[in-house]
Amino acid sequence: VKAGPRRILVLNGPNLNLLGQREPEIYGRTTLAEVVARLEALGDELGVAVEHHQSNHEGELIDRVHEAMAEPVDGLLVNAGAYTHTSIALRDALLGAGLPFVEVHLSNLARREPFRHQSLLADAALGVVQGFGPLSYELGLRALVALLPPR
Amino acid sequence: VKAGPRRILVLNGPNLNLLGQREPEIYGRTTLAEVVARLEALGDELGVAVEHHQSNHEGELIDRVHEAMAEPVDGLLVNAGAYTHTSIALRDALLGAGLPFVEVHLSNLARREPFRHQSLLADAALGVVQGFGPLSYELGLRALVALLPPR
Amino acid sequence: VKAGPRRILVLNGPNLNLLGQREPEIYGRTTLAEVVARLEALGDELGVAVEHHQSNHEGELIDRVHEAMAEPVDGLLVNAGAYTHTSIALRDALLGAGLPFVEVHLSNLARREPFRHQSLLADAALGVVQGFGPLSYELGLRALVALLPPR
Amino acid sequence: VKAGPRRILVLNGPNLNLLGQREPEIYGRTTLAEVVARLEALGDELGVAVEHHQSNHEGELIDRVHEAMAEPVDGLLVNAGAYTHTSIALRDALLGAGLPFVEVHLSNLARREPFRHQSLLADAALGVVQGFGPLSYELGLRALVALLPPR
Amino acid sequence: VKAGPRRILVLNGPNLNLLGQREPEIYGRTTLAEVVARLEALGDELGVAVEHHQSNHEGELIDRVHEAMAEPVDGLLVNAGAYTHTSIALRDALLGAGLPFVEVHLSNLARREPFRHQSLLADAALGVVQGFGPLSYELGLRALVALLPPR
Amino acid sequence: VKAGPRRILVLNGPNLNLLGQREPEIYGRTTLAEVVARLEALGDELGVAVEHHQSNHEGELIDRVHEAMAEPVDGLLVNAGAYTHTSIALRDALLGAGLPFVEVHLSNLARREPFRHQSLLADAALGVVQGFGPLSYELGLRALVALLPPR
Amino acid sequence: VKAGPRRILVLNGPNLNLLGQREPEIYGRTTLAEVVARLEALGDELGVAVEHHQSNHEGELIDRVHEAMAEPVDGLLVNAGAYTHTSIALRDALLGAGLPFVEVHLSNLARREPFRHQSLLADAALGVVQGFGPLSYELGLRALVALLPPR
Amino acid sequence: VKAGPRRILVLNGPNLNLLGQREPEIYGRTTLAEVVARLEALGDELGVAVEHHQSNHEGELIDRVHEAMAEPVDGLLVNAGAYTHTSIALRDALLGAGLPFVEVHLSNLARREPFRHQSLLADAALGVVQGFGPLSYELGLRALVALLPPR
Amino acid sequence: VKAGPRRILVLNGPNLNLLGQREPEIYGRTTLAEVVARLEALGDELGVAVEHHQSNHEGELIDRVHEAMAEPVDGLLVNAGAYTHTSIALRDALLGAGLPFVEVHLSNLARREPFRHQSLLADAALGVVQGFGPLSYELGLRALVALLPPR
Amino acid sequence: VKAGPRRILVLNGPNLNLLGQREPEIYGRTTLAEVVARLEALGDELGVAVEHHQSNHEGELIDRVHEAMAEPVDGLLVNAGAYTHTSIALRDALLGAGLPFVEVHLSNLARREPFRHQSLLADAALGVVQGFGPLSYELGLRALVALLPPR
Amino acid sequence: VKAGPRRILVLNGPNLNLLGQREPEIYGRTTLAEVVARLEALGDELGVAVEHHQSNHEGELIDRVHEAMAEPVDGLLVNAGAYTHTSIALRDALLGAGLPFVEVHLSNLARREPFRHQSLLADAALGVVQGFGPLSYELGLRALVALLPPR
Amino acid sequence: VKAGPRRILVLNGPNLNLLGQREPEIYGRTTLAEVVARLEALGDELGVAVEHHQSNHEGELIDRVHEAMAEPVDGLLVNAGAYTHTSIALRDALLGAGLPFVEVHLSNLARREPFRHQSLLADAALGVVQGFGPLSYELGLRALVALLPPR
Repeated sequence: VKAGPRRILVLNGPNLNLLGQREPEIYGRTTLAEVVARLEALGDELGVAVEHHQSNHEGELIDRVHEAMAEPVDGLLVNAGAYTHTSIALRDALLGAGLPFVEVHLSNLARREPFRHQSLLADAALGVVQGFGPLSYELGLRALVALLPPR
Repeated sequence: VKAGPRRILVLNGPNLNLLGQREPEIYGRTTLAEVVARLEALGDELGVAVEHHQSNHEGELIDRVHEAMAEPVDGLLVNAGAYTHTSIALRDALLGAGLPFVEVHLSNLARREPFRHQSLLADAALGVVQGFGPLSYELGLRALVALLPPR
Repeated sequence: VKAGPRRILVLNGPNLNLLGQREPEIYGRTTLAEVVARLEALGDELGVAVEHHQSNHEGELIDRVHEAMAEPVDGLLVNAGAYTHTSIALRDALLGAGLPFVEVHLSNLARREPFRHQSLLADAALGVVQGFGPLSYELGLRALVALLPPR
Repeated sequence: VKAGPRRILVLNGPNLNLLGQREPEIYGRTTLAEVVARLEALGDELGVAVEHHQSNHEGELIDRVHEAMAEPVDGLLVNAGAYTHTSIALRDALLGAGLPFVEVHLSNLARREPFRHQSLLADAALGVVQGFGPLSYELGLRALVALLPPR
Repeated sequence: VKAGPRRILVLNGPNLNLLGQREPEIYGRTTLAEVVARLEALGDELGVAVEHHQSNHEGELIDRVHEAMAEPVDGLLVNAGAYTHTSIALRDALLGAGLPFVEVHLSNLARREPFRHQSLLADAALGVVQGFGPLSYELGLRALVALLPPR
Repeated sequence: VKAGPRRILVLNGPNLNLLGQREPEIYGRTTLAEVVARLEALGDELGVAVEHHQSNHEGELIDRVHEAMAEPVDGLLVNAGAYTHTSIALRDALLGAGLPFVEVHLSNLARREPFRHQSLLADAALGVVQGFGPLSYELGLRALVALLPPR
Repeated sequence: VKAGPRRILVLNGPNLNLLGQREPEIYGRTTLAEVVARLEALGDELGVAVEHHQSNHEGELIDRVHEAMAEPVDGLLVNAGAYTHTSIALRDALLGAGLPFVEVHLSNLARREPFRHQSLLADAALGVVQGFGPLSYELGLRALVALLPPR
Repeated sequence: VKAGPRRILVLNGPNLNLLGQREPEIYGRTTLAEVVARLEALGDELGVAVEHHQSNHEGELIDRVHEAMAEPVDGLLVNAGAYTHTSIALRDALLGAGLPFVEVHLSNLARREPFRHQSLLADAALGVVQGFGPLSYELGLRALVALLPPR
Repeated sequence: VKAGPRRILVLNGPNLNLLGQREPEIYGRTTLAEVVARLEALGDELGVAVEHHQSNHEGELIDRVHEAMAEPVDGLLVNAGAYTHTSIALRDALLGAGLPFVEVHLSNLARREPFRHQSLLADAALGVVQGFGPLSYELGLRALVALLPPR
Repeated sequence: VKAGPRRILVLNGPNLNLLGQREPEIYGRTTLAEVVARLEALGDELGVAVEHHQSNHEGELIDRVHEAMAEPVDGLLVNAGAYTHTSIALRDALLGAGLPFVEVHLSNLARREPFRHQSLLADAALGVVQGFGPLSYELGLRALVALLPPR
Repeated sequence: VKAGPRRILVLNGPNLNLLGQREPEIYGRTTLAEVVARLEALGDELGVAVEHHQSNHEGELIDRVHEAMAEPVDGLLVNAGAYTHTSIALRDALLGAGLPFVEVHLSNLARREPFRHQSLLADAALGVVQGFGPLSYELGLRALVALLPPR
Repeated sequence: VKAGPRRILVLNGPNLNLLGQREPEIYGRTTLAEVVARLEALGDELGVAVEHHQSNHEGELIDRVHEAMAEPVDGLLVNAGAYTHTSIALRDALLGAGLPFVEVHLSNLARREPFRHQSLLADAALGVVQGFGPLSYELGLRALVALLPPR
């Protein structure tokens, strides 16, 4: 039997390591480390353990999802960045892992370029939160924890 | 000068009066009155006053947005239901009112029929929360309050 | 338990109040009152009670469908006019009401403008009758009564 | 001068010989012979003579339409099955014959695969009845007889 | 016989009541009352009586067009706002009324969002004037009066 | 070695047996027999033997093309009627036979319905003649004979 | 400093020299000379000097726009005829010249062939007037003069 | 009860009778008789009885599928040739027969003309083998036999 | 009254002056002068006077069509070259002139690049002849002369 | 000179390491190790040496293809998983390597989501085998070995 | 035999005569004369003779290409301006001339309006240089000279 | 402060390590090492330091761009190979790095497969050079150096 708090994996995709530096007029000035710290604090409040992984490599993100099956992780909070729109392989990994996940985005994709309007992950997710900057992650975590199936 | 707590108008579109009755496998069993009660409670917690209006009439929703300009309301939480996908007029009203708003949906539109994948409101909204049932409203209210511009 | 004959609601959408006056080369010269009278007579013959509502207001049609859930009505005969092609909200109301309905049209939509070739209601209906003028209603009523589920 | 009752040709396209056997969850359990028998009975009631032809061969259906010009037949009740969506040649035959016809379908095509949503015959027909199982034929026959031009 | 000056109905659609307030960088600072006053004055100059109706309700606009048939009105000047792009029902009402009308827009729709490039009314109108702010109405009135058929 | 005049097969597709009867405002009043007679006469003048085959059956047209390979025929004049737009199989037969052919049409397809604007045969043909009524066949025969490769 | 009345160049594109002769059921019976005469008279009334140039040559129209920069002309009234739909080069010339212009059409393009529904000039124009025959020019001139920036 | 080996029907569509003659650079030089002989030999090896039918007639192929239901045949190996891309009727026959089938093609359709990229049969098949010349049939037969449901 | 033989104007568009030199594998080695000579000879045979004009300038071709109205010419044989696919203005000129014309092409456009598959002139022409090299002109002339309306 | 048996590289793309675990209703319960073992056994039977590589990393798959050029490998059996639909880079690697390969899929892609209907590799492959579960690999290996060019 | 340096024709299309004046925020402030002077200087350095022609007339540009065949010119540097996107005739002239050419643009077309994203010339060119202002011409000249075939 | 020459990073995407080996009829016979050597020599001439990185891994290319921000590099010369058409993530990295870059391609993409006609990077680049083989890199380097902003 699983003991201890439930485990949530926060998965960040390409270029999110630049958060706070890259195009701040779109993505804001909070760094990824600060986002993760807030999520860890919120996780404490909600009684879940938050882990984090960021990669610019599609394959590494897939590998990390596969590992999450074995650990086991209870749910994922996913901002796949640009791979949201191009990676069927990541979608397959998430579906294959059979773990509930919530999709989040810092920016409101509906205001971005047309090639960002379509998500290959969204219909596999529980739901989507987008447009609120780092707050999107926190709201997504709240949703994920609230909707985790009972053990 | 404005005194008292900020005012948030929750606007619900067509068929949401049936919430809890209509297609519960999609929309759940919580009634609209229960959703509103939760939002009022959360509003108290967040220090904002929550008002609510539901209508099946596109024109009445537009009229209500216009009234919100004069009262004045500080922000809107909008679930326009099917008008999300067909009402340029409601979009115009929201843009014309110049008030910040958050778009919410009970269901994950990405899992629904193709004609529900496109929102005419989303790029005018601060952001979008969808797929978490009544919780979508609560998360949307948190986001809206957090992002209200300072008075 | 329900007593008395089954109740059928005939719902007519925008501009159908003009029937017999408006574009008679397309819609014929029979008035709406005459159509309703024929349906009432046919209803007597088939052992059902026929009620009728026409409105140019999308919201009013939705309200009327909602009321039909409570009365209760046993089935609907729907000519949504132009809203056939634009109203996802009316579709949602019909699906939400969970009542069987038949879609009818006076004219043969396949001969009309391209924006009339697509119906947002048809795949939610039992079936469709179109192109036979007022006779479309009568045949639709026959089909609806024949396919009503047993009480 | 023509004497005797008017003649109606019921034309059934490919695979309709399997009716009652093939995919009964879609097409029901009534056989084609039973459908024809019902139409003959209804024809008696309406004062018309009903003939029937079924073929899996596009060319044979076209030949049969050509023969109908000479007999002469007064109108056709057509369920072209899959040829509804692919046969411009059958459309040409029907238009070339210059005979009024009604298009019928057992299933509600709006609920079927996308390649069944478009009919190449419908705009050449008087009208369409679809979705009511074998009843579609009966309603179609009523419509056809009602709309036959006077001799 | 009709006596007195010809009657022109100016019909304004959703959000036009906000004129002068809403998005003035697009729609200018003239109010709707001022526009109507100018049209009344121009009507006097051109020898026609100008009436005005604005509504945010699609159904109410349709009702008003129907009433115009009976009064009778001689022609309409129509700015249907957002309903220009979504209301087949209003189009049907205008065609059904059989009254000549001119379509006007304050802004140049070709410079707006793609969903505003298509008008469902334009091919039913005598012609279109767009892009000149309140002057569009005045020019449209001139055109309408010049092209009214002789009594 | 082949002796005697070259052999040309005129192949006519569905509904062309009705020529002169069917939709004369489009196809004219000359019968197919008259067209063939003119082609035989023109063949005599040009020194070729003209044979003719018409069928409403796609499969029979394909069979006839296959036979032409063995006889051997030197070239084909093809009016595939509606199969022009739907029969990849006939295209394959013509390409498989490896015989030169000219495509002809009585009407100018560019003036017809959109589904007649595309030919599945044209890029496999030497060239196309369309729009001149029965004269299209005669001009097509002239072109075919002129372009036959030397024996 | 510029003295004298402002100068307006009326630019007419291909085939407009045939006005009054060509397809009068579409374009009416007024000749181009008459249209220009009316515009000159209206120009006098409005206090502007009206010049005119018509050409069937795309390049010549572009050259004329370039010359207008130097003269200088204060604004253009443009009916580019068929080049409205095909000439990016004329669009570039008008944008390059940096002069305000109004687009006019005799016919209501929304009633014409689909390839006339799109204008390559409209979003570069102040606005558009179409459908009122020669009156379109006069209304366009009024709009242009009213919207000319102050010297 | 069924005795003897299972029966497999090999169904070949239009122009496949020309195999070995027609366009050998695409389809190779093996004749259809040779292909069938190889399949019969392989059938012996795999313990199934192989029957064969080829036709250029869509209707005849459909008839043959219907007969297969009654014989009964245990599975089909189908190369529908050009009808792969145009025959919804053949698809309906195969689905209606309810027999498992494998789709095979001599050539690799992905290298052919765009109109050959889409198969109307593939999603009804167990699977597809394409591109290996006559070997495609043999591999398809192996797959079909391996996947036949137990008696 | 018109005396003398009927006059046919052969109009050739851009790059056809290079005929015989440019891309001979597509267009052959006959020069334009030779084509015109053959047409003049054929014109003599058919009792019509053949004139010729070639230009690389769209505007000049339009001017020439306008002149043809006045001369008057009885019909045109048009190979508009690349303008076939891009010139709405030339189409307008031909329609405006109200003269019958036949469209011809040296090559078979169905075998060319996709942007050559669509003709802006074809539905305004009597008919089309394409793919036979210089013979296309001769056949086109025969068709045009045969279909000239009686004087 | 190359000695020993020919070498075949089996290349598996993202998520195929989960085979037998992930979505077994689609992909079955056989593990990748079992598939590889079967291929090795079949390789022995067919006289070829089978090697295997699986990766979730697009770049690693490309690297592996490049290495195959040098070893040298004689042919590849490729199931690129989701990269089948998104990786032009892998396509380029396979084309660049100049080695024959066969594309295989466990599931029948025609029954899957629309974004899996298109393969970026298929037209570069010898052929495709799909839909037969692990058997697809075995049949693909048979095809590849049979079609390897002679040394 | 040709003596002297190779000849390069620089061809500039519509509105490029305005260079330095028109929309300098897009096209910069260098004039066309200055660009040509730089190219002549660079030509001296590279050992080629540079000639220049600019026209706003599509036909004149085509004529100039034809002349280049005879002079003979050895290669062209082409900035066709807006005709890049609309002139199949200029494409035909360049292909017909059979001379190597390089396509250049001042601005980066990928950043411009969608109708400028497609070039009708590019696949006929050796290559393309765009986005570097006047430097595009110089780099294009370097490329052209480097790739001229040996005499 | 930065000292020494400016630093240019040449970034090469997937399969470019095969340059000179892979498909030489498209990409030529120069190796990547030779290309880099030429660029280093040209860099010396232009006074910039040239570094190089090639990878088949999308993630590694992104990582390398991120590192370039810190070093700092002054500009990039990018041939992303197939990732040009599929990698929004690389686009984001380049935009996020905020460094000027030039896009280059060996082949003329307009002559390649349709899926290579669209670049996801081009509108983020200063400009594009394509089609000149290894010379594209040299011209791109010249452009990049010329357009580097002053330190």
